[in-house]
Amino acid sequence: MTDNTPTAALLIIGNEILSGRTQDTNLAYLAQKLGAAGIIMAETRVVRDKSAEIIAALNALRRAYTYVFTCGGIGPTHDDITTATVGAAFGRAIKQHPDALKALQSHYPPELLNEARLKMAAVPEGATLIENPVSKAPGFRLENVFVLAGVPRIFQAMLDFILPQLAGGIPIESRTLSTALAEGTIAATLSSVQARFATLDIGSYPYFRQGVPGVSLVLRGTDSAALDAASIELEAALTALKAGA
Amino acid sequence: MTDNTPTAALLIIGNEILSGRTQDTNLAYLAQKLGAAGIIMAETRVVRDKSAEIIAALNALRRAYTYVFTCGGIGPTHDDITTATVGAAFGRAIKQHPDALKALQSHYPPELLNEARLKMAAVPEGATLIENPVSKAPGFRLENVFVLAGVPRIFQAMLDFILPQLAGGIPIESRTLSTALAEGTIAATLSSVQARFATLDIGSYPYFRQGVPGVSLVLRGTDSAALDAASIELEAALTALKAGA
Repeated sequence: MTDNTPTAALLIIGNEILSGRTQDTNLAYLAQKLGAAGIIMAETRVVRDKSAEIIAALNALRRAYTYVFTCGGIGPTHDDITTATVGAAFGRAIKQHPDALKALQSHYPPELLNEARLKMAAVPEGATLIENPVSKAPGFRLENVFVLAGVPRIFQAMLDFILPQLAGGIPIESRTLSTALAEGTIAATLSSVQARFATLDIGSYPYFRQGVPGVSLVLRGTDSAALDAASIELEAALTALKAGA
Repeated sequence: MTDNTPTAALLIIGNEILSGRTQDTNLAYLAQKLGAAGIIMAETRVVRDKSAEIIAALNALRRAYTYVFTCGGIGPTHDDITTATVGAAFGRAIKQHPDALKALQSHYPPELLNEARLKMAAVPEGATLIENPVSKAPGFRLENVFVLAGVPRIFQAMLDFILPQLAGGIPIESRTLSTALAEGTIAATLSSVQARFATLDIGSYPYFRQGVPGVSLVLRGTDSAALDAASIELEAALTALKAGA
């Protein structure tokens, strides 16, 4: 990965994730899509449905990374405060967007388009809409910030809509090796392979599968040839270690 | 929840979570345990295996919340930099801890206790150890920061060890109602119930189950009587809305 590889952060807005009630799945989905587009997921934060906390996190992230994605809090209920707080973070007023209104009007009969639902047609001034093919209420983009729904099915559909807008880099690839050797046994070998392939990130992840321990070795980077060479070298070194163990 | 309810944050250290390769489950587990102990999970951050980023996040979180938990990066391999960075964040030297050494010596025969494994006996000066019944290499506590393993099985065992050390509050309880009514239909009702029960957090979470939409309404707080009263009131209001729909 080079220093000019684009970076991204995810800001998850939602008490339901922080309470442990709901298991987030948007991070892994987004990270995989971004990696394939050559964009590094560099940080994720999960904050409560509190304006000051959302604004502080959003302002820190949008200054630090190429792109910021938010999820959660853009529905019609009292706890959906994301649109208002994103507006506040940018110092922009919230206004009804004519295309968002049209999308909602195409989905709801007039008697159901009440005040709560009309809230979903309002976005910060200057924002462009992100289509929602599932339930019509759009997300929006403001500068480098993409405001998406939290429901995974809608989050994923919105992400598909915006991926072509992102300036990516060289796709980030990975190679994975598994070994039954313990981390402490392979640590010195891993260090020396990492040192020789400085453009790659080599990670070592111990696991238990049905109670049996093992280690996954994951090599990540944008240089396919280096990934292949490092994998072959590491595989050979592990085989030698195993024979000697 | 009152203003003096203890708060907590989780700092997840790990490229494997940010790359989307591994699905985090430690947040939900920790949040549920803390909620039962009357401690609010207020924020979570996921950062890369980079010293400067870990230090910045840790210093922000440990000043903002009663307790901070970290997970990941305390093993023997080159990418395990958590202990060193936590030491740097506190300005403390890293030293071998005699009890940690003993724990490792009880687990490994001398010929396997190599330099990589000995790294796991070192903790910042002044830290107290957190037992690891699974693989012996301990975590540690330094002031309000608890440094735990990332592997869920070990994370959970370490958490069980430290939970009795935490000064908790009144357990946070929840009540959940489900409805087939849409969020836009129930929004005004929800707002008015939330307004009358200001000590509770009422969240509205739309979902699709086998393609069928619904909404979960979750009431959270420390006041059992208020939770019961608000649930009954909300249930009755939803029944009335449904009859009128």
